[in-house]
Amino acid sequence: MFLRKDSHISRSEGFTAHTRVLVSVDQRHVMATLYQIEDGFIAANEVGLSEAAWRLLGIQDGDRIRIRHAPTVESLSLVRSRIYGRELDDDALQAIITDIVKGRYSTIEISAFITTCATRPLSRREICALTRAMVASGERLHWDDMIVADKHSVGGLPGNRTTPIVVAIAAALGLTMPKTSSRAITSPAGTADTMEVLAPVSLSEEQIRAVVVRERGCIVWGGAVDLSPADDILIRIERALDLDSEGQMIASVLSKKIAAGATHLVIDMPVGPTAKVRSAAEARNLTEGLTGAAAAFGIKLKVVRGDGNQPIGRGIGPALEARDVLSVLKCEADAPSDLRDRALVLAGALLELTGKAAPGQGPAMAATTLDSGQAWAKFQRICEAQGGMRTPPQSLHRKTLTAPCSGTITIMDNRRLARLAKLAGAPEDPAAGLDMQVRMSERVEAGAPLCTVHAETPGELAYALSYADANPDIIAVRA
Amino acid sequence: MFLRKDSHISRSEGFTAHTRVLVSVDQRHVMATLYQIEDGFIAANEVGLSEAAWRLLGIQDGDRIRIRHAPTVESLSLVRSRIYGRELDDDALQAIITDIVKGRYSTIEISAFITTCATRPLSRREICALTRAMVASGERLHWDDMIVADKHSVGGLPGNRTTPIVVAIAAALGLTMPKTSSRAITSPAGTADTMEVLAPVSLSEEQIRAVVVRERGCIVWGGAVDLSPADDILIRIERALDLDSEGQMIASVLSKKIAAGATHLVIDMPVGPTAKVRSAAEARNLTEGLTGAAAAFGIKLKVVRGDGNQPIGRGIGPALEARDVLSVLKCEADAPSDLRDRALVLAGALLELTGKAAPGQGPAMAATTLDSGQAWAKFQRICEAQGGMRTPPQSLHRKTLTAPCSGTITIMDNRRLARLAKLAGAPEDPAAGLDMQVRMSERVEAGAPLCTVHAETPGELAYALSYADANPDIIAVRA
Repeated sequence: MFLRKDSHISRSEGFTAHTRVLVSVDQRHVMATLYQIEDGFIAANEVGLSEAAWRLLGIQDGDRIRIRHAPTVESLSLVRSRIYGRELDDDALQAIITDIVKGRYSTIEISAFITTCATRPLSRREICALTRAMVASGERLHWDDMIVADKHSVGGLPGNRTTPIVVAIAAALGLTMPKTSSRAITSPAGTADTMEVLAPVSLSEEQIRAVVVRERGCIVWGGAVDLSPADDILIRIERALDLDSEGQMIASVLSKKIAAGATHLVIDMPVGPTAKVRSAAEARNLTEGLTGAAAAFGIKLKVVRGDGNQPIGRGIGPALEARDVLSVLKCEADAPSDLRDRALVLAGALLELTGKAAPGQGPAMAATTLDSGQAWAKFQRICEAQGGMRTPPQSLHRKTLTAPCSGTITIMDNRRLARLAKLAGAPEDPAAGLDMQVRMSERVEAGAPLCTVHAETPGELAYALSYADANPDIIAVRA
Repeated sequence: MFLRKDSHISRSEGFTAHTRVLVSVDQRHVMATLYQIEDGFIAANEVGLSEAAWRLLGIQDGDRIRIRHAPTVESLSLVRSRIYGRELDDDALQAIITDIVKGRYSTIEISAFITTCATRPLSRREICALTRAMVASGERLHWDDMIVADKHSVGGLPGNRTTPIVVAIAAALGLTMPKTSSRAITSPAGTADTMEVLAPVSLSEEQIRAVVVRERGCIVWGGAVDLSPADDILIRIERALDLDSEGQMIASVLSKKIAAGATHLVIDMPVGPTAKVRSAAEARNLTEGLTGAAAAFGIKLKVVRGDGNQPIGRGIGPALEARDVLSVLKCEADAPSDLRDRALVLAGALLELTGKAAPGQGPAMAATTLDSGQAWAKFQRICEAQGGMRTPPQSLHRKTLTAPCSGTITIMDNRRLARLAKLAGAPEDPAAGLDMQVRMSERVEAGAPLCTVHAETPGELAYALSYADANPDIIAVRA
């Protein structure tokens, strides 16, 4: 909230910069952080509010509002008690998460909660209590089936778009797999962004239910159904801090899956120096933590480790990744084999975990379903059920980057490749992104194509290319 | 920084809400947090900046600026390493504090630093390293004297304005005592606010030096000379979190005193359930920590505990507290005895610590100096040296709150008394505040005065009185 420093209310209430205030209209309230301004845009008897506050208060320009010091948020004393050494129980974490979801914590306070839970790691009991509180913070889907399959990827590599393929295979074999996915926050595409170029993904709970009743599976945007909203809030601050603590990662993953009604869960865990999970030891700890916590909620869970050293597939960006997915589903001759292989391993693990396949037979069963065209047919029916299949858009402006000399590809910098794709316009422009033409360790001749930049406007293409010019080692060729 | 969500730079750079950006003009840079707006006040090729950013960049309306993603702040990886279990050394804390003072940390990141240092308490070595880094973050005063006296109060009670009296006594006895004090942040008056109604306090380093050479002592605003600026930044976030960790409190106190050049330091530590230090055990721990860390910097330190259950003196607010100080210095018959007694105990401790008085003789020596008029004479000379003594302003509007029934005073709620004084206009209006007419456990008749509210405008008086009406138990009388 913006308020003039010299306004009557600012002076008499003793508001200072960053004061937490309660803004009220009738029975609706919003807690806000105060920014003081000295002159300019607003009058002394006016305030400025964020778009979110306007929506929550349901007000119009010119309405009268009430402002006062925000009441004490009682659960903050629980956060302080944890900082001072106490372990938090179910009730405490419930109170904290409820207040966070209701918008009663400032970002500074959320940061303190996250940091204390990372500095003195959450105990097993705290992880379960946090998970339970996060599930209770939002909606929950219930299914009649005894087995509800799900998958999750820890720290996606660019282009690692196995989900639509896994869902198509699982649903084709009769597994119930109502998959809710996220949109990109800092990456060039989330699974929901990629799927959206192929079919509508913003479905209501009733619409999701209708799709799943008819086709067993779906691939929709989780944000439309409010599953574990606490997770979205915490993740935003964790990302700002670049902080991943094991306990919070476990609660984050499980709360979303429990809220979605999953009973059997396969976790895709790429391990590599630039992936989220960096070492075998870290992978082992996280696997133990996930398995233990999942068991406490009656969920069967299997972690499938993978190579986290390279991107998967060729496209980076919604439409280009969707093209790879279609290519694998259609079993085209030049489909990216790494994407196909990874999808089969994950689908196979899910088939074994749910008892659809005998131990060791999962990947073969998945391959048969894919090669027979059943997965492709199922995927098309899912798209129709979600509102109609779409053709991915094509970019209008392209430029191919070429090898400056003959040699071997020694570096493919995933982080900067993602940045380049975003500069080109992904994911807002779904056709924008990168199309990779080489893989690590491949030999190339001078002038050979390395990757093609796709953009919707000449301006964005130029912007991305100037970044590529300034960073010639994003894809490095050693003679 | 405010930027339109649909601006070219927002889209092409991939800025999202809360992105940290670097704003540059020529060779000047400011790191800012991005707030995205959708329409309204600014054009797509314009940005809005905070007053602080305008000042730091030295720009005019209409100037061209450059904006890009903020470079990685390397020291944040050190904060993360502490969260993950590492102890921080001198270099690490130096790097963190330097970046915080240069404005490179967002409030979320500062909150994480503070919280990790409180959750796994700072080690003795870390406390010393943090203190050293905080001293190095700002200016440092050097004095030729072997003994430079100072005092500090941990968690002031309302009206606890002993500093001007202690400085006057110490300087009258020949001790060098260049006292730098703070302004109120959330209280109705800081020592600098109170002193300012008696003399100018915003002095440059040269001016302070001239006063101290001439009179031995001064009472000035520390903010004008930039001592341990890191402390001011950290305290703002600690206050927002309502978090006081022992290690940070020690580093905060000592860094300010080391930067001010102190060699001998008396700490006023009120202990009581509503004071900052709540129990004898807490006081013992903090005393040990302070003494140990001070020794590492060659500072002689003595902690003087006191009763933290009651406010000290009668006035609350700059001018009313200044009146109490003058009354004690002039040895008036009705001077508040609690303020006089506390000032003599603290001055006595300082005289003994510095060797001016033999053990046990300090308070008597202080009393003699006060009663002889030497302290009052010294105080007047200090005020003259600081730019001329002033007469405290008188309020224009007053209203006395009275006892609703005959009985005994059982509650004096310090927190809400401070709030009432602020609602009346303190410290912005120096004459505003409260004048207490009763003490705890005193007997009063129905209709007897309890305290008088002072304000500069009828509106503020009315505002404060309506708060008093709604909170009749701020001063409770039990029949």
